[in-house]
Amino acid sequence: MSTRLLDRLASIVGAAQLLTDPDLKAAYETDWTRRFSGSALAVVRPGSTDEVVEVLRACSELGASVVPQGGNTGLVGGSVPRGGEVVLSTLRLRSWEPVDVDGGSLIAGAGVTLASAQQQAAAAGWAFGVDLAARDSATIGGMIATNAGGLHVLRHGTMRAQLLGVEAVLADGSVVRRLSGLAKDNTGYDLAGLLCGSEGTLGVITRARLCLVPPMPRRAVALLALPDTGAAISLTADLRRSLPSLMAAELFFEAGLRLVLDHTGAAQPFAAPAGAYLLLETAAQSDPSDDLATALTDAPGEVLLASDQSGRSRLWQLRERHTEAISAAGVVHKLDVSVPLDRLAGFVERLAPTVAAAAPSARVISYGHLAEGNLHVSILGPAADDESADEAVLRLVIELGGSISAEHGIGIAKVRWLEADRGAADVAAMRAVKRALDPAGVLNPGVLFDT
Amino acid sequence: MSTRLLDRLASIVGAAQLLTDPDLKAAYETDWTRRFSGSALAVVRPGSTDEVVEVLRACSELGASVVPQGGNTGLVGGSVPRGGEVVLSTLRLRSWEPVDVDGGSLIAGAGVTLASAQQQAAAAGWAFGVDLAARDSATIGGMIATNAGGLHVLRHGTMRAQLLGVEAVLADGSVVRRLSGLAKDNTGYDLAGLLCGSEGTLGVITRARLCLVPPMPRRAVALLALPDTGAAISLTADLRRSLPSLMAAELFFEAGLRLVLDHTGAAQPFAAPAGAYLLLETAAQSDPSDDLATALTDAPGEVLLASDQSGRSRLWQLRERHTEAISAAGVVHKLDVSVPLDRLAGFVERLAPTVAAAAPSARVISYGHLAEGNLHVSILGPAADDESADEAVLRLVIELGGSISAEHGIGIAKVRWLEADRGAADVAAMRAVKRALDPAGVLNPGVLFDT
Repeated sequence: MSTRLLDRLASIVGAAQLLTDPDLKAAYETDWTRRFSGSALAVVRPGSTDEVVEVLRACSELGASVVPQGGNTGLVGGSVPRGGEVVLSTLRLRSWEPVDVDGGSLIAGAGVTLASAQQQAAAAGWAFGVDLAARDSATIGGMIATNAGGLHVLRHGTMRAQLLGVEAVLADGSVVRRLSGLAKDNTGYDLAGLLCGSEGTLGVITRARLCLVPPMPRRAVALLALPDTGAAISLTADLRRSLPSLMAAELFFEAGLRLVLDHTGAAQPFAAPAGAYLLLETAAQSDPSDDLATALTDAPGEVLLASDQSGRSRLWQLRERHTEAISAAGVVHKLDVSVPLDRLAGFVERLAPTVAAAAPSARVISYGHLAEGNLHVSILGPAADDESADEAVLRLVIELGGSISAEHGIGIAKVRWLEADRGAADVAAMRAVKRALDPAGVLNPGVLFDT
Repeated sequence: MSTRLLDRLASIVGAAQLLTDPDLKAAYETDWTRRFSGSALAVVRPGSTDEVVEVLRACSELGASVVPQGGNTGLVGGSVPRGGEVVLSTLRLRSWEPVDVDGGSLIAGAGVTLASAQQQAAAAGWAFGVDLAARDSATIGGMIATNAGGLHVLRHGTMRAQLLGVEAVLADGSVVRRLSGLAKDNTGYDLAGLLCGSEGTLGVITRARLCLVPPMPRRAVALLALPDTGAAISLTADLRRSLPSLMAAELFFEAGLRLVLDHTGAAQPFAAPAGAYLLLETAAQSDPSDDLATALTDAPGEVLLASDQSGRSRLWQLRERHTEAISAAGVVHKLDVSVPLDRLAGFVERLAPTVAAAAPSARVISYGHLAEGNLHVSILGPAADDESADEAVLRLVIELGGSISAEHGIGIAKVRWLEADRGAADVAAMRAVKRALDPAGVLNPGVLFDT
């Protein structure tokens, strides 16, 4: 089978775009976290939607499994092979159409990076609503397939909210397509929204029409030292209603701040430790600093404000450098969870005791996006293969009605948790949809559902 | 079969909630437009999700078709029987949970009206992002099933954008449910988004978690007389980027304005006729009139401004009373289409000649939501059963890559147009999803797809 398949794939994309040499395949076989890897039969790099159609037809007909891959910046093993699959890289699908300046939208190929899309939008006097740290590698296709979130979800929503339509190739090679850019279109099921977040299990996204948002060039940042998580939650709730320029509300805690200060050598920003730290960013077309300062007049804690670039960056560093400070401290178990906001304070309170009960020597550090109840929970101490603390935290999340994967997706990493979190009926409905669109299980087997 | 089914349904909901008397059934058998009606075997009014489960199990087991119905304000025949089905009314599903004030969301039963949801939101210091004229009858369940749009899509999106999760009963009686309120949740397919807009063909929505938006109590309105549609489009595009308080941008034309003035006796607002009229509304927490006036300083046409209630209402009437003025002029053929914004001016230009070629004596009047390229096209003149002009307009829409149903859905009215608009592959994918979740075709047969 495999020689026949490889010959056929080579005839579709050209021999140079079919990688079988282990050295050339390597970059596509291991995931960003380095925790997930497997050997691909081959990596195929189609250069057009038509080539994607032919590749999927060939794989379907010859019974090969396909792992779609964008910028390979995923964190849950969803875009690297488990063993023996064909990796379909979308990196060459970099077509562009001119920005629709009046409509405020653009069409980009799946392989276009987020940074390029941001630049194209800016050049046309618009902005793109999603931003995240992997912007130079993450691709539009991959971000749609995983419904990427990031820093500005509070204001603009996740990737699904930016979608005006997609073009995608299904397992049988048929092409669903709605790219003309219709903000209102009630003609049947929302296939674009269904493909968004499906992690390559329903189709290969080849192009997308994305809506743009008004540029908000002026920023102001505040860092607050608050008595506890509850105070951060209610202050943010008030600001969401009274301060339309609010763009980000990030939460972190003393343990994380101390680690960042030790790691970076930055000065302690506050006189005394606080129960919770809240970083707020506002963005508008004219300077939003006065509004921010006024809105925080009665805040129940110390407030640091910054409107110039270096001051803002100094405050942001205290939040953004958590990842590297934690990594520098040893083996990290990373969880990405969300809980309903009315249970977030309870979650934070129970987190340390829950981890301690499961792994007495462990340290837990968390930070995240407050408005969505989304915490990145890092556990330091247990060996890489000791998941007892991780499991205890995920059980707590499920008990509180939360999500075991707020941003990163299920991939292969969290398959065994999906049904516990979503319930049997939801998963049965998802499996029915999967069988309907990919009856032979060609696309990304092992992701979302066990095979 | 039918006696056995009726006995079983009565035992589930109680005899008083199973309507078989023609007088009692009548209100559920004819649609808001009075164009669509059919006789129901019975109308069943379950009072809880559990009762919906039992009703669907009974109908599935005994081979009965089910037409889900909310407030019965649809316009495309999607929620009234074609003949012999069981109508499942969701009007008694009026459960409430207290508003989550910090999270900015609420859970409402499917039968709650939009007006009630708006009041609950307001009482908690929030607002609901969707508004439409049928607010006192339209239900949350029906609005989700049809992905309702309305007046504020420009600012807050359609119903799908307000959804934080749903509870729905599938044809086999299984219950999908995600109601805890998670703004970020990447655990599998977006079932809520898939059910939204599925017009009762995939499941019966029983409850939903809806996100709320900040209240914007201060308003300002401007009416502009502009040289042509193109000027209205580019002015709106500029304002979308420069005026964050923009809430509505409504387009209409001289023919419609004249009809409204004749019908209402209102005074001609401008000295001379114009190529296009643009009504803009801004909404903010503090008075947005100065910002609006400033933003319109260089507008290419005459501008009327109003910030007090009566002045705003006077301007809005010129747009809002189009519907009744047109109805008063005779038999109306109504279309609800959207076209890409970069083709909207061309569409407007070709509309009258297209209609004239198909029906020489017809008059065409259009108005709508500019930012989404959404026009409500009304054709006066042809007899009720003469659809030649309608067809010519829909063909033009399809030629321009538009949507034959921007807001109203497909229902039974536009089934034969779906594939021409969406293409065979999209419709095949939708049919596969339908078969996956409702293999026996119990739910709303004849809607979206012919049977």
